[in-house]
Amino acid sequence: MPEKISLAEKFQRFDDHWAPRIISRYNSNEVRIAKVSGDFHWHKHDQSDELFLVVSGTLDMEFRDSIQVLHEGDLIVVPAGIEHRPRARNGEALLLMIDADGTPNTGDPETAFKPVEI
Amino acid sequence: MPEKISLAEKFQRFDDHWAPRIISRYNSNEVRIAKVSGDFHWHKHDQSDELFLVVSGTLDMEFRDSIQVLHEGDLIVVPAGIEHRPRARNGEALLLMIDADGTPNTGDPETAFKPVEI
Repeated sequence: MPEKISLAEKFQRFDDHWAPRIISRYNSNEVRIAKVSGDFHWHKHDQSDELFLVVSGTLDMEFRDSIQVLHEGDLIVVPAGIEHRPRARNGEALLLMIDADGTPNTGDPETAFKPVEI
Repeated sequence: MPEKISLAEKFQRFDDHWAPRIISRYNSNEVRIAKVSGDFHWHKHDQSDELFLVVSGTLDMEFRDSIQVLHEGDLIVVPAGIEHRPRARNGEALLLMIDADGTPNTGDPETAFKPVEI
């Protein structure tokens, strides 16, 4: 039978930034968590929307023509194919994310951090 | 361009229980929020897993042979086809949920609360 997952407990299991871990699966998607700090790079995912929920901290989600500043309890869905750059400019932020199975976090399978299950 | 969504702001928009609202869409899924209190009934969703994240309060997720007690920051994915009964026995709980588009919250299209977008 299914078991509950504590986000707080899962976040204790790693410390590296921009390196998502898989904590569960939903239909054909990976439920991921990540710790982020500083800038990521511009990228996009052609095959999947990407959902972000800020669990703690502040996340800037930059688009080519706008920016959204997310705080704890804010959520955003970046549609497939839309270029975005996530940045955490006020220290570490903790994120819950959902991506279609196998979506490369960098937008490029060559450079992606392969998320492992924890 | 995509805009952020504040869960707290969305929860202020309604007060009824067991009546999910759609706050966003991710691939072919609905991102829903619900306020719950007391017992729901046994049901299942044959076509979709169902993800629950407890935003506040306590949620008991009963299965036929076990029970999981979720607190704030706990998540569970109920696989498609698995009977479950959600209950909030310690006052109101606030939930974030993800379901495939059009999934009836009661498990039965005849009795389902048709979630509206807010």
